[in-house]
Amino acid sequence: MKICLAQLNYHVGNFAANTGKIIAAIQTAEAQQADLIVFSELCISGYPSRDFLEFDDFISQCAEALNEIAKRTTKVAAIVGCPRRNPVKEGKDLFNSAFFLYEGKVKQIIDKTLLPTYDVFDEYRYFEPNKTFEVVLFKGKRLAVTICEDIWNIGDENPLYPACPLDELIKQSPDIIINLSASPFSYIQHEARLKVIRANVARYKIPMVYVNQVGAQTELIFDGGSVVVNEMGEIVEQLKFFEEELLFFESEVRSAKSEENSNTRHRTSDIGLVHNALILGIHDYFSKLGFKKAILGLSGGIDSALVLYLAVEALGKENVLSLLLPSGYSSDHSLVDAIQLCENLGTKYETIPIEQNFQSFLETLEPHFNGLPFNVAEENLQARVRGVLLMAFSNKFGYILLNTTNKSEASVGYGTLYGDMCGGLAVLGDVYKTQVYELAHYINRNEEIIPQNIISKAPSAELRPNQKDSDSLPEYDVLDKILYQYIEKRQGPKELVALGFEKPLVDRVLKLVNGSEWKRFQAPPILRVSPKAFGMGRRMNIEGKYLG
Amino acid sequence: MKICLAQLNYHVGNFAANTGKIIAAIQTAEAQQADLIVFSELCISGYPSRDFLEFDDFISQCAEALNEIAKRTTKVAAIVGCPRRNPVKEGKDLFNSAFFLYEGKVKQIIDKTLLPTYDVFDEYRYFEPNKTFEVVLFKGKRLAVTICEDIWNIGDENPLYPACPLDELIKQSPDIIINLSASPFSYIQHEARLKVIRANVARYKIPMVYVNQVGAQTELIFDGGSVVVNEMGEIVEQLKFFEEELLFFESEVRSAKSEENSNTRHRTSDIGLVHNALILGIHDYFSKLGFKKAILGLSGGIDSALVLYLAVEALGKENVLSLLLPSGYSSDHSLVDAIQLCENLGTKYETIPIEQNFQSFLETLEPHFNGLPFNVAEENLQARVRGVLLMAFSNKFGYILLNTTNKSEASVGYGTLYGDMCGGLAVLGDVYKTQVYELAHYINRNEEIIPQNIISKAPSAELRPNQKDSDSLPEYDVLDKILYQYIEKRQGPKELVALGFEKPLVDRVLKLVNGSEWKRFQAPPILRVSPKAFGMGRRMNIEGKYLG
Repeated sequence: MKICLAQLNYHVGNFAANTGKIIAAIQTAEAQQADLIVFSELCISGYPSRDFLEFDDFISQCAEALNEIAKRTTKVAAIVGCPRRNPVKEGKDLFNSAFFLYEGKVKQIIDKTLLPTYDVFDEYRYFEPNKTFEVVLFKGKRLAVTICEDIWNIGDENPLYPACPLDELIKQSPDIIINLSASPFSYIQHEARLKVIRANVARYKIPMVYVNQVGAQTELIFDGGSVVVNEMGEIVEQLKFFEEELLFFESEVRSAKSEENSNTRHRTSDIGLVHNALILGIHDYFSKLGFKKAILGLSGGIDSALVLYLAVEALGKENVLSLLLPSGYSSDHSLVDAIQLCENLGTKYETIPIEQNFQSFLETLEPHFNGLPFNVAEENLQARVRGVLLMAFSNKFGYILLNTTNKSEASVGYGTLYGDMCGGLAVLGDVYKTQVYELAHYINRNEEIIPQNIISKAPSAELRPNQKDSDSLPEYDVLDKILYQYIEKRQGPKELVALGFEKPLVDRVLKLVNGSEWKRFQAPPILRVSPKAFGMGRRMNIEGKYLG
Repeated sequence: MKICLAQLNYHVGNFAANTGKIIAAIQTAEAQQADLIVFSELCISGYPSRDFLEFDDFISQCAEALNEIAKRTTKVAAIVGCPRRNPVKEGKDLFNSAFFLYEGKVKQIIDKTLLPTYDVFDEYRYFEPNKTFEVVLFKGKRLAVTICEDIWNIGDENPLYPACPLDELIKQSPDIIINLSASPFSYIQHEARLKVIRANVARYKIPMVYVNQVGAQTELIFDGGSVVVNEMGEIVEQLKFFEEELLFFESEVRSAKSEENSNTRHRTSDIGLVHNALILGIHDYFSKLGFKKAILGLSGGIDSALVLYLAVEALGKENVLSLLLPSGYSSDHSLVDAIQLCENLGTKYETIPIEQNFQSFLETLEPHFNGLPFNVAEENLQARVRGVLLMAFSNKFGYILLNTTNKSEASVGYGTLYGDMCGGLAVLGDVYKTQVYELAHYINRNEEIIPQNIISKAPSAELRPNQKDSDSLPEYDVLDKILYQYIEKRQGPKELVALGFEKPLVDRVLKLVNGSEWKRFQAPPILRVSPKAFGMGRRMNIEGKYLG
């Protein structure tokens, strides 16, 4: 049987675009004389459709698109993901379903059993879990069709669900597992997926066709990387990461390809994957919202340097404008380094000293501040003047402001709300400062794109004379380790001390993290590249007291 | 049996405070020779504890607090809500549980069966649903203990869950239903609760003791209003709204109290409830975060006037500072009206014209703006200068900025990000403009607190000459009706046209709402008073295309 894996980039709620893309793929599959084409989870609506799913009209549009697509399956069969109404009154109103389409109509429906409701996932918010199991019979083969999480309740000491749907399906002696996924990227996700797929083929002793979606939906970046794995756990086919691809294969051929044609063909280092993910994240945010041009404040520091580089990669150098916004506390090298970077990248910049506007505010405030000493109020004022100028360009010319806050800063609240925390999209908000350096070295791996001085100088906000980040924060290599254990690993204060960090430092860092929830609440959406990013995947109380 | 209903205000994660409060109530119950005291859902941790529940150490602290409390139940039995670890490996790691404590220890554990996962609720994110049922035997009575949602799957044509836990419990012939709740306020919630409680007592023919928590947790405001309802559906006891209360009653006495002592004793109009809810919401945001002082920009318009009044009620007139920030486009009456309001309320204000700072920015931008005409860039500049000045006061003196955006504005994106959208808490973000007027009339019901001119003048942002809201938006009485149907009722464009709204207007409004998701993403937390507020209860894609 000739099967096509359709790894495509969908746009949530854009039924015309998604349907058109699906039909075009079916036509290609037909031209290639494929028997079956497999799409990813909820491809018709786009994933995640979130609360659009609560609109009855949205579900009707899904059904209409499904009918339109079904009509095109006269010769090639297709499995597509689409929400459907629960025909039973009791329970949630919808199922998360896979439709087996053939001979121009819906032949069979498979509903998702395991509904991820953790981290960034909210599926039980919308869907009723499936409780019945039936393989799909097609051209003499028995297909065990599953949807994403359905294959994930395996190989864990502490399984998240009481049962595995494939334990039921295997009783019907399927020949192959087919999985429709919408599995977002993190730098550990590719390994985790392969491990889960291999655990399944090892347990059920049949091969698996795994089709993931690709493309970013604001915070979530889907990396594709669809695969075919044989019953020995070997990779038979590996699709690209971060790109659309249609791949055809004969289900009878199950030998692993040679090393360079399979798995490692598309592999790169973890930091290389993060690099590619961020570029796709920026690109899709702009393209799906219909924007073209980005602006950012270029400080001469490493964070904004990285964001500029990534934006140029994602949008083209002609579509990015940097504003250099020096204050009286900016060091000379900041401007020089920033200009050097713009020249290296061949992008536009404009220089606007903020001193006049800053002084204007100081004058206005002087009668009210009663001679109180310079403090965080004046520091933040400078950051906010920059925010106002950047947003004025945004409003006047239609640029979208890119935020340059990194995850270490976002964690401890080292940033000015409505100042350097402004922006439509936070490019580095899930990248710790130590990873920012790794990224810079990765970008410079062949030539010096980011000027070395930007990488080697000590980080500083430059909001008062001779300021260094290390004046108020622990060194980043220590800070990031604590943050990682607390945020990604959910280790509490006792566990952190047991890990060898000093108690006063742990208390100080955790107090900063918990005390910054109110700030993060108003931060821009963050491109998620780790298993635990700020945003939809981490839901904390602003007024919560624990560890605070 | 003498039962005490303990309707208390908890602080998420503040184990010392919550435990102390619970133990003090047990001691009072003991002094009053009560047999049993019933607390609300998850009272030990506070509700909602959100992702704190993912910290193993947090759960250990819950267990320690529970043990501490159990020791105090030597004479009076207590039912307290607390998360507990799932002893079975399969499934989620926690249960949402009620502990029956007596004779100094845990006698019985009841786990929650129905886990709300919709709107503001995320319970299946954390908890495994219960599947076993047993009544609590105590002093010859059989208590059917349930937790919040457990009683809600009733009386609906389209029930959310396949089964009702009380259908199981009733087989054990209980004498009384006890329900521990954490049911947040909305202006329809009290009626909805009474309806559900009455549907339960009608179906199971036994009375119900319903204990709700009180107090606000950032977005969610819990209104209390605990009740005892007899098997005829009559209210035997009704606790206060928006206040802590311990109430004792004899379970043998089941006759309804006279009208003035029961239900209507604490009832007020819908808008009166909203008024009280907002004051509690402001109060608890400040008290739980340890803040005292609020600041706001007072424009002379009705929204900021209302926020000032509510803040004064919540925090005291000495703790609120208003800044009057006129621009060249501000009308004379704006200042006069704002000052009159401050005088009526006896609160401080300072006047700071923004013209100098605005001009300073225009000068800075002039070489870059190339003579392009005045547009939204300059309008937003004024709003952002105000934001910078308010935040400078906040940083210098420790005021928390209150946001004054109303729900109509938040819906259609009529507001300046980092300008008038600044603030730690959005007081009116769930109150439509037409409800803002209702609130103003309610506040003025006995005397003119809000100057009549503020109420009667046409709404204007005053960011360009002679601007009126109605220049860019439909009249609020029409706009609010469309918004209500779209946001609260999830009616799509076809349904809205069928309701009688003109298609071009529907398209325009829906495009504004969907096109403002990116702005709302960065809005402050909003006090929720409706069944569908922006914030944690409404989760939309920024890049979603549907209806856009």
